[in-house]
Amino acid sequence: MANSYAIGLDYGTNSVRALVVDTANGAELGTHVFSYPHGEAGIILDPNDPNAARQHPQDYLDGAVAAIRGALDDATKSAGFDATRIVGLGVDTTGSTPIPLNAEGVPLALTDAFKDHPAAMAWLWKDHTGHAEAAEITQLAARQHPEYLAKCGGGYSSEWFWSKLLRCARVAPKVFNAAHTWVEHADWMPAILCGITAPAGIKRCICAAGHKAMFHPDWGGYPSAEFLGALDPGLARVRATLPNTAYAVGHVAGRLTAEWAARLGLPEGTPVSAGAFDAHLGAVGSGIGPGVLVKIIGTSACDIMTAPLAQAVPDIPGLCGIVPESVLPGAYGFEAGQSAVGDLFNWFVNVVQPGNGSHESLTLGAEQLKPGESGLLALDWNNGNRTILIDPRLTGLMLGMTLHSTPAEIYRALVEATAFGARTIIGRLEEYGVQVDRIVCCGGISAKSRMVMQIYADVTGRPMEISRSAQTCALGAAMAGAVAGGAHPDFAAASAAMTAVQETRFEPIPANAAVYDRLYGLYRRLHDLFGATSLAENQFDVMKTLLAIRDEARGA
Amino acid sequence: MANSYAIGLDYGTNSVRALVVDTANGAELGTHVFSYPHGEAGIILDPNDPNAARQHPQDYLDGAVAAIRGALDDATKSAGFDATRIVGLGVDTTGSTPIPLNAEGVPLALTDAFKDHPAAMAWLWKDHTGHAEAAEITQLAARQHPEYLAKCGGGYSSEWFWSKLLRCARVAPKVFNAAHTWVEHADWMPAILCGITAPAGIKRCICAAGHKAMFHPDWGGYPSAEFLGALDPGLARVRATLPNTAYAVGHVAGRLTAEWAARLGLPEGTPVSAGAFDAHLGAVGSGIGPGVLVKIIGTSACDIMTAPLAQAVPDIPGLCGIVPESVLPGAYGFEAGQSAVGDLFNWFVNVVQPGNGSHESLTLGAEQLKPGESGLLALDWNNGNRTILIDPRLTGLMLGMTLHSTPAEIYRALVEATAFGARTIIGRLEEYGVQVDRIVCCGGISAKSRMVMQIYADVTGRPMEISRSAQTCALGAAMAGAVAGGAHPDFAAASAAMTAVQETRFEPIPANAAVYDRLYGLYRRLHDLFGATSLAENQFDVMKTLLAIRDEARGA
Repeated sequence: MANSYAIGLDYGTNSVRALVVDTANGAELGTHVFSYPHGEAGIILDPNDPNAARQHPQDYLDGAVAAIRGALDDATKSAGFDATRIVGLGVDTTGSTPIPLNAEGVPLALTDAFKDHPAAMAWLWKDHTGHAEAAEITQLAARQHPEYLAKCGGGYSSEWFWSKLLRCARVAPKVFNAAHTWVEHADWMPAILCGITAPAGIKRCICAAGHKAMFHPDWGGYPSAEFLGALDPGLARVRATLPNTAYAVGHVAGRLTAEWAARLGLPEGTPVSAGAFDAHLGAVGSGIGPGVLVKIIGTSACDIMTAPLAQAVPDIPGLCGIVPESVLPGAYGFEAGQSAVGDLFNWFVNVVQPGNGSHESLTLGAEQLKPGESGLLALDWNNGNRTILIDPRLTGLMLGMTLHSTPAEIYRALVEATAFGARTIIGRLEEYGVQVDRIVCCGGISAKSRMVMQIYADVTGRPMEISRSAQTCALGAAMAGAVAGGAHPDFAAASAAMTAVQETRFEPIPANAAVYDRLYGLYRRLHDLFGATSLAENQFDVMKTLLAIRDEARGA
Repeated sequence: MANSYAIGLDYGTNSVRALVVDTANGAELGTHVFSYPHGEAGIILDPNDPNAARQHPQDYLDGAVAAIRGALDDATKSAGFDATRIVGLGVDTTGSTPIPLNAEGVPLALTDAFKDHPAAMAWLWKDHTGHAEAAEITQLAARQHPEYLAKCGGGYSSEWFWSKLLRCARVAPKVFNAAHTWVEHADWMPAILCGITAPAGIKRCICAAGHKAMFHPDWGGYPSAEFLGALDPGLARVRATLPNTAYAVGHVAGRLTAEWAARLGLPEGTPVSAGAFDAHLGAVGSGIGPGVLVKIIGTSACDIMTAPLAQAVPDIPGLCGIVPESVLPGAYGFEAGQSAVGDLFNWFVNVVQPGNGSHESLTLGAEQLKPGESGLLALDWNNGNRTILIDPRLTGLMLGMTLHSTPAEIYRALVEATAFGARTIIGRLEEYGVQVDRIVCCGGISAKSRMVMQIYADVTGRPMEISRSAQTCALGAAMAGAVAGGAHPDFAAASAAMTAVQETRFEPIPANAAVYDRLYGLYRRLHDLFGATSLAENQFDVMKTLLAIRDEARGA
């Protein structure tokens, strides 16, 4: 049988990447990255509001053409590659990144009436303008529908779908009223490439709907119109435009139109998979399956797990999302994360020691240290805590400094803090019956820092495996394309053929693990003392009060 | 009446300073500093034991000559100065800095038998080799004589007299057995200059005896021979060589011999005051009196207060020392302190940001910040806590960091932490009835940093006054000489004539003080949570366990 190929189209925060993959063995034949031209590094900011982050939908369209054409050009350097043997296309995007559409399915940002209006753009995942609205949604759900919150860990986030829509209704009613419906970027891309413009025809993916829009089969899909209407009547109107079905990756969302096929250089009618978020398809590209925890470790960390739908999985407190089929068909998908990992190390290098240390020089010093030798212990909360406390207003803590504590010791303590945070997530999953048998890491830090990976192995007491691919999100998207295109019957087969881990893996060193067990006990005490509201002896309000004082001081 | 002059001889850690002062108005006519030639910057170290710090007594003798001769040369530049009108000499030294003497009163280090033996040298204040012995003394006193501990805040320190003697008995019995008695540097200097060599004739000052050797009139002087003998029979032998009387500054310890007068260039028979420690005479030189707290703020901070002997002063928990007449005749002397102030700022500048920031550049950024604006809060324990927790094994803590926390914010948080520590000491004094009406600061930081002084005023809610003299220890020693020499009838008169504060003083800014009141509440919670053993909800063992783990890791 002749080789067949799939394409993964991976929309990140600043750019979009296309990857051409051999479906038989996962060989990556061609890739190309297109940086979004609008705004700063692709993000349209508001100088008056640091919470705002928007993107221009035109960048998504132009990016699809440039990235796929570039990747195909790159692939043609490989002997035997033939673009006519491309059997499927998959897409992943950031999220929740909703886009307002008019009744004809055109993004408002692409209409003359709203073409420079920030509220008409895509509301990027990290837009936090809706933080007050998020609190409002959480409060109402706590009173009327606690089951909505139980699936998203107990609190609704300002990064999520309904917070952004409600914010738009409040501050930009003209835009909100002109929007017939809103669509996730992950859903818009497959639809537009397949010529599906009528809003009613756009298929919604379960990954976005379930993790960000409180969609769940238990209550028949999205939240009730009554609940949404109590927040704003306009939300009930939007609710009426949304379907009651959502789709997992691998489902054929549509087929490439002749027009798009020509623009992209792909066969007309190529099946396009339903979309998903980048981290989820990153987990797929890392070989996720039963018992495998995939950790995507970059500036922040995203942890993805699955469990068979047949398994009775309880709600897990503090876990951001538990959604049937959000990662793979036939399995529950779990999403957890840490708000800062690489960003924490970058803070120390770039902000605390500007122009002085480097990750390389600090690592040289830090890797000479034995566990516990520094006497330092830190909490990894400089950007809040996503799992298991779900609290963006927690802040950092470091303890144990003497007059001799060195930058390398501090750097290592920050690395260890993120490892303790990772262990806390694993512990919470297993407490609730989701057994972690293997851990596969991907993302920049897993590829770059042997020290970090060894510390993670020592702190968790488990081997750390590293994904073979350096572009797992795009690879996972290509796998979705391959399944949609029939090159593999399911993701288990696609995974067996197309993913692998590196030969080098990091085994825990027992002596180190023993010390880290003791340090983790102390970490966990600080974690609960400052982060949990439930302990009698907690000091939970210390960080909050500091932030309140800080906000007052800054506003004064 | 013609002017008269007094000389202050101020023995510091690395050098000795002499100062010639006009007794009528405190004018400083001449000064000279002599750096000790032995060891590293005057300190004889042990490459195998970082706790060891010794000094050579010959440096003290050579230093007296060089410093006084130099200061007189300097003073002769002033019109009208006449060295024959010098009426008194005062001495201050570091302490506890005990020196072993043979039966003839000769320091063992100056005898052929022991001339290069480290244990025969002066055991400098910061020699911590006796930490195990200090714990042994504390334990025995807690069982047999809790009253001994009550006067020194609840624990006996490795920096103090009996810890050092016991250590010598244990590790250098030859030296210990050859020592007829031990004398504080502060007592040896007046004795030697006045030709008092017979050990029984050496007068002991109450400052050293009371603060460092558990001397108290309540139990007839030094601790009982029975108690000391239970620690080591040799200590009981030394106890028998010690007098039951100790003297305050201003008491004439003796008069300059003809030989020393000639060597120093001073009138024969000049009265020499009983000695005292540098911080205590620094307080005198800063104008200490009823209701005045003197803060000597340098690498660490020393706080000195007095209260009339007529006042019923209780034991104050956590205060290092409460000794009748240790600072001024007729008053209780109180000594408190912070283990790191300038050292804490130096750590951040020199260790965390080597070759990058400077105190000046960080201050420029930090002084732009409003109180509370950074969201940061720190404990000032990187070198332990001297008052009110008396625990050298407490360590630093910083809380509230985000990914945007800047070096200037961290620097300011460290400054604020030391101010919170200062406020805690003031609060403790006043809780026990020692009213603080004025605060006068001296020492390097008070002279150099307007920002630090303003923060201290804002945090404590009290004006910060700054001593006029930049060499208050030597000035205080000269005042002791002036009183001993009869130029003033008492220290109140000497203080009125010879000391002053600068015109510039730092007033608390109400808006800042209001924010700092709130931040201090949080500081105090962290302080008690991590530093006190008495709270049910304490996390006291977190730092201890980290240190134990650290020590094990370093020893492994």
